[in-house]
Parts: sequence; structure tokens; C-alpha cells
Amino acid sequence: MSIWFIEDETPGYKLQWKVNRILYQKQTKYQYLEVIELEDFGRCLILDGAIQITEKDEFIYNEMISHIPMVTHPNPRKVLIIGGGDGGAAREVLKYKEVEEVQLIEIDEEVINAIREFFPQLAGVFDDRRFKLIVDDGIEFVKSKQDEYDIIIVDSSDPVGPAVNLFEYPFYNDCLKALKQDGILNIQSESPFFNQDIIQKVTKILKGLFKHVDTYLACIPTYPSGLWSFTMASKEYRYSDAGLERANAVDTRYFTPDIFRSCFTLPKFVKDILCE
Amino acid sequence: MSIWFIEDETPGYKLQWKVNRILYQKQTKYQYLEVIELEDFGRCLILDGAIQITEKDEFIYNEMISHIPMVTHPNPRKVLIIGGGDGGAAREVLKYKEVEEVQLIEIDEEVINAIREFFPQLAGVFDDRRFKLIVDDGIEFVKSKQDEYDIIIVDSSDPVGPAVNLFEYPFYNDCLKALKQDGILNIQSESPFFNQDIIQKVTKILKGLFKHVDTYLACIPTYPSGLWSFTMASKEYRYSDAGLERANAVDTRYFTPDIFRSCFTLPKFVKDILCE
Repeated sequence: MSIWFIEDETPGYKLQWKVNRILYQKQTKYQYLEVIELEDFGRCLILDGAIQITEKDEFIYNEMISHIPMVTHPNPRKVLIIGGGDGGAAREVLKYKEVEEVQLIEIDEEVINAIREFFPQLAGVFDDRRFKLIVDDGIEFVKSKQDEYDIIIVDSSDPVGPAVNLFEYPFYNDCLKALKQDGILNIQSESPFFNQDIIQKVTKILKGLFKHVDTYLACIPTYPSGLWSFTMASKEYRYSDAGLERANAVDTRYFTPDIFRSCFTLPKFVKDILCE
Repeated sequence: MSIWFIEDETPGYKLQWKVNRILYQKQTKYQYLEVIELEDFGRCLILDGAIQITEKDEFIYNEMISHIPMVTHPNPRKVLIIGGGDGGAAREVLKYKEVEEVQLIEIDEEVINAIREFFPQLAGVFDDRRFKLIVDDGIEFVKSKQDEYDIIIVDSSDPVGPAVNLFEYPFYNDCLKALKQDGILNIQSESPFFNQDIIQKVTKILKGLFKHVDTYLACIPTYPSGLWSFTMASKEYRYSDAGLERANAVDTRYFTPDIFRSCFTLPKFVKDILCE
């Protein structure tokens, strides 16, 4: 079989992956969902034509979106994950013993079902007694919360389709209120190569709402351009003040205490995007 | 026009770029050389089907292969660049005023000619009075040298075709002899995702020859997997002992003094490749 999955990144740039097997394809209420097995990257979840996770490199994204805020906060006990229906970020958050509850709010139940059926190494987290799944619209859910979470992680897809309002002021303002007075919001904020406008926009909004806003980077092979940004907004704690004992205690494949420090070091062209 | 340049990275993974114009195509004595203009990344030099540089992101590779050894060495005056016929690494090295001579040895004169014709922003360096071009086989050239260079940069293409012997013991041993007694050798050592065997092999060889061997990383969008490794082997100086005044003095777009420190921080899976 010579079938290739082709992901359009920009009008002039595509990634192309050899497909071993197509396991599942369905138009859900919210998006077109596919599970395929790639020759080089194993099983892969695709939403509206964009790769969300692959077996081979999901550890990088999931570790980096989770451990940075988890180590920056000295004692995170209640964590909300918005999006992230693949369970990868929840798996990382639950590596910390002090966590009492992780709520995951995913708008599309079909994502959860696909993970349960095709990604057993991720679905395990759904059975953790500290894990609570809520199938609902994260934007509406957060509006009803106040002073409740230590950390909110926005593990969204790209700002098109169902995720578009997760990159706007009203949502971030609701997250601010839903967080405790020393809470941390962490979002994925796209590629510094292809989405400079998004990075600038979310940084500007978050700086108007939070005491500390810091951008950090990771290198994720299956995401467009490889270079990927996260933006962490915090009411009280800053990464540079964090103790690293808790970073040492978790079992990871990308993240280390040294990576915790160095991922905030930005190349000059990224500092320029942020006007630093 | 809807023409796409497709680069085979592995049997199951390709990058695909929209072509605006094909400027030049020629089978040289050594390789198939193309200059095309990409929709998203500008003009682009391709050798045997692999992108070497694009106008849009060449600064990352060229800065990172050059400035790390240039800052690690306290007073580099004579530098040899093997390969690197595009002139990008030479351009970066010549940003340091203390440099008296940069020799660039490129096996394929057609690469130089194509740069002169199609990449004026790179070709400028060929007219610098401190720059000396030698069209010859770098492997043979280095054999004849002893105790001559402060820094040797091996800016090779992938270890297939004309570059294959640039990843072998005899060549590195000749570089050791060609360097002064406090000299530094720096090589590009491929992707930690797709070429773990190459990184392991060159690290093992270089550790048998040099006092210090250190791996560092950069994120280069147009190279396979984005994540790219360099291996620096030094007879005397180590990066961690370097003063950063000289790093502050150069004008760059990716490299900064903070990047100089942090690029040596390796994700856990890369440390595992290196058995660190």
C-alpha cells in the first residue's frame, strides 16, 4: 500500500507521512477525526487534517505543556485541562503526587472514544481515581468557575474551527477568575515561524491580565516548523523562582530540570516577535 | 504554476514545498544541484534532493554551527571551513574582528558558482579580504596540514554521496593534527530523531581523540524533524568556561549569549542517545 497523509501547513508547505493503516475516520459534531498508523511515527490522531499526537513524539508536547507550570507552582492540587482529550497532558500532571484532582474538559466526546479504542497507553489515565472527565464546551464551563484551580492548561488545537475562541480575551479573562489567587494559566501558542501574529496577540492579552507572562519553546518534529511555543501566565509565581526538587522527581523523556530552565531562553528572532 | 519540491527524509516521511520558480538545475561532477525559489522560504539551494539552505531560515544553521566554537575559543584567528560552499558559515565567522583568515574548502566549484549567481546576500563574503576559497577535496587537503588552525568547521551535507567520509575516524584524526594544540573541531551531526546512529558514532570517535566533546542543538524548520545536532570537539577550551563578552558583540538573528549557554541543555532522550 502506498497511501500518504498530507498535512497542509501553509499554502506553500506540507508534511507528508506514509500510512500503514487507516484505523478510523469519522465526521463528528465538531470536526473530522481520523486515527491512522504512520510508517515512521506510529499511531496518530488527526483532527480536521492536522496531526494532534503521534505515538512516537507525543511525549515532547505533553511533557512540555504540563511540567513547566507544574514545577513553577509550588503545590498544585487542583488542575483543569481544557481540550487535551488525548489524555497526554493529564497523564503528565498526574505524575505529581500532590495533585488531588485533574479535571479534563473536552468538547468532543468522540476524541475520548477514539483514544479509549486506539491508544491504550494514553487511555489508562482515564481510569485514575484523581481524574475527572467532563464532556462540555470549555469556554462555557470556565465562565461558571471562580477561585477554584491552581493550574489551567489550555491544550487546544490550532485557532481554527472549535478552538478559535480559546485564543481570545474573554476566555483568558474567565480563566483568570477561575484560577486561585496564586494560579497559573498555560497555553500552547503555535509556531514562532508561521504564527507570529498569534504569539503577539496572546502575549499582549495575557500581559494585560496576569502579573507574569513568559514564553518558552520546545522542538516537536510533527508540528509545523518543528519549533513550538507555549505561553505561561501566572498571578504569583515565576518560573525563575521555582525550586527544582519536584522536577527531579518525575519520570520523563524530554523534560529535565535543566530543560525547565533553558526552554525559556529564546532565539533572538523570537525575542524580536515579543519585542523583548 | 503548481509545482512542488518533495524531499524524502525517511522512507515514510517527506517535506513538500511549493515552487515559485526553478532557477537552475545541473548535474555537477559530484552531485545534482538545484536552485529554486520556494513560495514560503525564498531561494533555496538543493544538493542531491536535500535542501541545504533557504533564504528564510539559513541564519539558524549558519549562526549555530559558527558562533558556538567561535565564542568557546578565546582568540580564533585562523579558521578552516570544510564544505559550506554557500558561504553562510564563513559570513558568521568573519563577524569576529580578531579573525585574520578564513579558508573555505569546497569540493564542488559549481556550488560556489551557483551562490555567486543566485544568492548575492551570501556571495558577498567571497570578496572579503580575509576570505580564501580553495576548490579541492577537504579530506585530502586536511591531510597535508599540521598545527595550523584555531577552529575547523565541518559544514557538510548528509553522510551520503561526497560527504560520507567526513563522518569517519581517519578524517577526524587528520583534523586533530591540522588543529593547533588548543584548537576546536565543530561538525553538524544530523537529527537526534532520525540519525541516532550517526550521533553515537561520531561522538564515540571524537571522544577517543579530543579532551572535550559536547553536543548541542538548534531548531531548524527546513531540516528533517526540525531538531538538529552539532558536535564540538576541543583540545583545550570548554564552552562552560567561555567568557561571553565576544558573544555580546556580534549581530545575529538566532544566536545570543543565553542561547550559547542553553543550547547544550539536552532533552532526556538525547542524553540517552549519548549515554549521558
